[in-house]
Amino acid sequence: MAPTTLTARFRQSVTRNALRSYLAEFTSTFFYVLAVVGSTMSSRKLMLDAAADPSGLVIVGIANAFALSSAVYIAADISGGHVNPAVTFGMAVGGHVSVPTALFYWVSQMVASIMACLVLQVTAVGQHVPTYTIAEEMTGFGASVVEGLLTFALVYTVYAAGDPRRSQFGAMGPLAIGMMAGANVLAVGPFSGGSMNPACAFGSAIVAGRFKNQAVYWVGPLIGAAVAGLVYDNVVFPTQTQDSTRGVSEGVGV
Amino acid sequence: MAPTTLTARFRQSVTRNALRSYLAEFTSTFFYVLAVVGSTMSSRKLMLDAAADPSGLVIVGIANAFALSSAVYIAADISGGHVNPAVTFGMAVGGHVSVPTALFYWVSQMVASIMACLVLQVTAVGQHVPTYTIAEEMTGFGASVVEGLLTFALVYTVYAAGDPRRSQFGAMGPLAIGMMAGANVLAVGPFSGGSMNPACAFGSAIVAGRFKNQAVYWVGPLIGAAVAGLVYDNVVFPTQTQDSTRGVSEGVGV
Amino acid sequence: MAPTTLTARFRQSVTRNALRSYLAEFTSTFFYVLAVVGSTMSSRKLMLDAAADPSGLVIVGIANAFALSSAVYIAADISGGHVNPAVTFGMAVGGHVSVPTALFYWVSQMVASIMACLVLQVTAVGQHVPTYTIAEEMTGFGASVVEGLLTFALVYTVYAAGDPRRSQFGAMGPLAIGMMAGANVLAVGPFSGGSMNPACAFGSAIVAGRFKNQAVYWVGPLIGAAVAGLVYDNVVFPTQTQDSTRGVSEGVGV
Amino acid sequence: MAPTTLTARFRQSVTRNALRSYLAEFTSTFFYVLAVVGSTMSSRKLMLDAAADPSGLVIVGIANAFALSSAVYIAADISGGHVNPAVTFGMAVGGHVSVPTALFYWVSQMVASIMACLVLQVTAVGQHVPTYTIAEEMTGFGASVVEGLLTFALVYTVYAAGDPRRSQFGAMGPLAIGMMAGANVLAVGPFSGGSMNPACAFGSAIVAGRFKNQAVYWVGPLIGAAVAGLVYDNVVFPTQTQDSTRGVSEGVGV
Repeated sequence: MAPTTLTARFRQSVTRNALRSYLAEFTSTFFYVLAVVGSTMSSRKLMLDAAADPSGLVIVGIANAFALSSAVYIAADISGGHVNPAVTFGMAVGGHVSVPTALFYWVSQMVASIMACLVLQVTAVGQHVPTYTIAEEMTGFGASVVEGLLTFALVYTVYAAGDPRRSQFGAMGPLAIGMMAGANVLAVGPFSGGSMNPACAFGSAIVAGRFKNQAVYWVGPLIGAAVAGLVYDNVVFPTQTQDSTRGVSEGVGV
Repeated sequence: MAPTTLTARFRQSVTRNALRSYLAEFTSTFFYVLAVVGSTMSSRKLMLDAAADPSGLVIVGIANAFALSSAVYIAADISGGHVNPAVTFGMAVGGHVSVPTALFYWVSQMVASIMACLVLQVTAVGQHVPTYTIAEEMTGFGASVVEGLLTFALVYTVYAAGDPRRSQFGAMGPLAIGMMAGANVLAVGPFSGGSMNPACAFGSAIVAGRFKNQAVYWVGPLIGAAVAGLVYDNVVFPTQTQDSTRGVSEGVGV
Repeated sequence: MAPTTLTARFRQSVTRNALRSYLAEFTSTFFYVLAVVGSTMSSRKLMLDAAADPSGLVIVGIANAFALSSAVYIAADISGGHVNPAVTFGMAVGGHVSVPTALFYWVSQMVASIMACLVLQVTAVGQHVPTYTIAEEMTGFGASVVEGLLTFALVYTVYAAGDPRRSQFGAMGPLAIGMMAGANVLAVGPFSGGSMNPACAFGSAIVAGRFKNQAVYWVGPLIGAAVAGLVYDNVVFPTQTQDSTRGVSEGVGV
Repeated sequence: MAPTTLTARFRQSVTRNALRSYLAEFTSTFFYVLAVVGSTMSSRKLMLDAAADPSGLVIVGIANAFALSSAVYIAADISGGHVNPAVTFGMAVGGHVSVPTALFYWVSQMVASIMACLVLQVTAVGQHVPTYTIAEEMTGFGASVVEGLLTFALVYTVYAAGDPRRSQFGAMGPLAIGMMAGANVLAVGPFSGGSMNPACAFGSAIVAGRFKNQAVYWVGPLIGAAVAGLVYDNVVFPTQTQDSTRGVSEGVGV
């Protein structure tokens, strides 16, 4: 990764391989959001007060774990399997993805999320797309802190899963990422919502037309992701000179 | 895979190895349908209005994920582990399975599904085999679109799992396929049913004698599967010249 | 595996390595039964009519999948990870375990199951150990057929997982076995109980003192296991001459 | 591992690599406790009497399995992924971690647990951090025995997962550990709580200010962990001369 001008970096971001990456991010994010938002709608349909029923949380938590594991799995060899603007941000902060590439990833993820929510809204006629909300007893700041901590855990897991020095456990990387997300949803679902994914929160807010507390799902996760990337690369598993040996998670930056 | 006449292709489809493949498809589909339809019957038995209880959806979603993962696992090295006529169709469209072979796969899967539903019908005397239904607020077209999208995701995952270029993650392929199916069921179970599998929908309809909306579970999935195969092979992961290097998922076509 | 007299075979069964195998079977079966029977007691304690609540089935089904996966995992390299007299029977029928060894396995599994149920009975003072029961609308014969079919699926998966020719998927073998068991429990739990394991059914019956329908949990599973072994070795994946290349699942017979 | 004086051993425990290990233990334990205690709070919030609803147990059991699997996964290559003072104790008894290192691990785990509970207490304003309790019908001694047995199973699985002689199954080690924990929680959650982790029990007790039955969550697990380590190393899988070949789970002791 020799020093390049912004133009050259941008040109790297519109090659054939780069476009494949954006398509992979689009596909994975689309089906992840479809599963997460769809499972919330499913549980609400099955019980009018499902927001206050433990089984509803089980549905959403397991759907999150299953969907994220498989979404990361199918994109892992192509785009790195971010499926989440916060992960892309954390990767860009760590220098594993160039800034123009990260912007294209963001656009792919946002469009995918909005389209997934639109499909749900259009096909399920009588239902509204749900948005993430925080519990009454929480402040917006408290919810941001919680979402930030959980996103730290998620991005840290993504870094660990994409680390080629951990060869033995590489095969279960996508599964570990999904399980971390699922555990987090089960832990804080009824409190801050457990989004950890700005695209997911943004897409459902756009389609539902409700932007209350939207900042909670951006500020916390982005800060948490950036800190996770810096901590992993500099403190926990310091990269010496061979900076560019990270294969899978570098995505199109290779 | 040199150009062959239809007769030669057909002859390839009745070799000893091919017959083993059909048996493997039969076995895996039989136990997959037994688990999926059986778990729906179980949840209905436990609660008269289980169709309207979130726990019932948890049972069916997890049963789907577990059963598909293990059914694909046990057949993966023999038939490619399709367990689903839509997957076989997507593989045939992509040229990974010859048309006569695909037809034999379909027959194996259909017979297996009908027999699994018959076993459930006969042994659980007081119960009726449930059929897939769509929610009142959905149109048949909307349900087809949803089933088609979800089948796209499933077949896309099957393609990714069977791709020998993704060696690192190969070991968890069957698991990723099962988790994608489970997430989809949790997402749309109460809306369009989340079948993604024409054999499963057909077998239960035959045994129950109710064919309402049956087309929904054929049109959407088959189109979704075909598009997934074409997109994966031509856009996301273009196969260059070495067309025949796909081992596992080619099944008897090798 | 040269032809040996019964005495020599018996002597093979009391070597140091063989004793380690019995201990491994004892440990794995003990914790498997503790989890399966314990989770049934847990769900009953949480709700008086939990036998008629879908959440109770979720608890037992997931506990079964998790417990069997990890129990097989910890014993896989030592005894082959049978954790189930029906699996041992299927392995003995296929010639992968000698008859005296199989008998010692059975004793280990039975004693482990009884001890696990005793621990639960003694520590949870106010509760009774539950036994497997079949639903009113089922006949004993129907329940036997169902249990036999499910055990066929389980033993077939064990054979596939222990097959050294399936190197790519070997790592997730114990997981596939557990998921097959979990899916089966979710499918037929409220009908025939979904035991698939004579040791589990026998241990709880001994401690509870209720032997009604006990035959259901022996006849079906043993027949299903034997058929699975014969079908896998002779039809699906015929072993040619190198009969003794199966490593993991041969256990002490190596 | 030549004979060293206590001072030299202590010096080994404050190297740069050792400090990375403590940080890894801190991070993993923090997010594990956040998920386990948080999921209990989530289920209580969703239903006032969730302690008496099976769905609540499903939430906690699955959160435990998912969180422990991913927490062990992200720390496995750095600290060995103990995430549990009982595991560290079992490793120290077996000689795989030196005593000073084990003490630093304990401090990291305790501080992480307390901080995770504090975060939950502060952000979820209207809720109290729950503590582990034993059912009325159980004696403290009975609960200790149960917790000890389950911790035996957990530490035994950790030993098996970290054993380099089991190369084939190494990739799913963290998953097997998490599934064993999840199965145990589902089995005894409503009876003894299913902690198996003194740090988790201690952190929540500190923040909640309730120390009733705290000894149950220390005595049983520590004894169970020590016995598991001794049984695995000396009986089940005796280590011959090459005592120091255990890579992953030795942590900083290497």
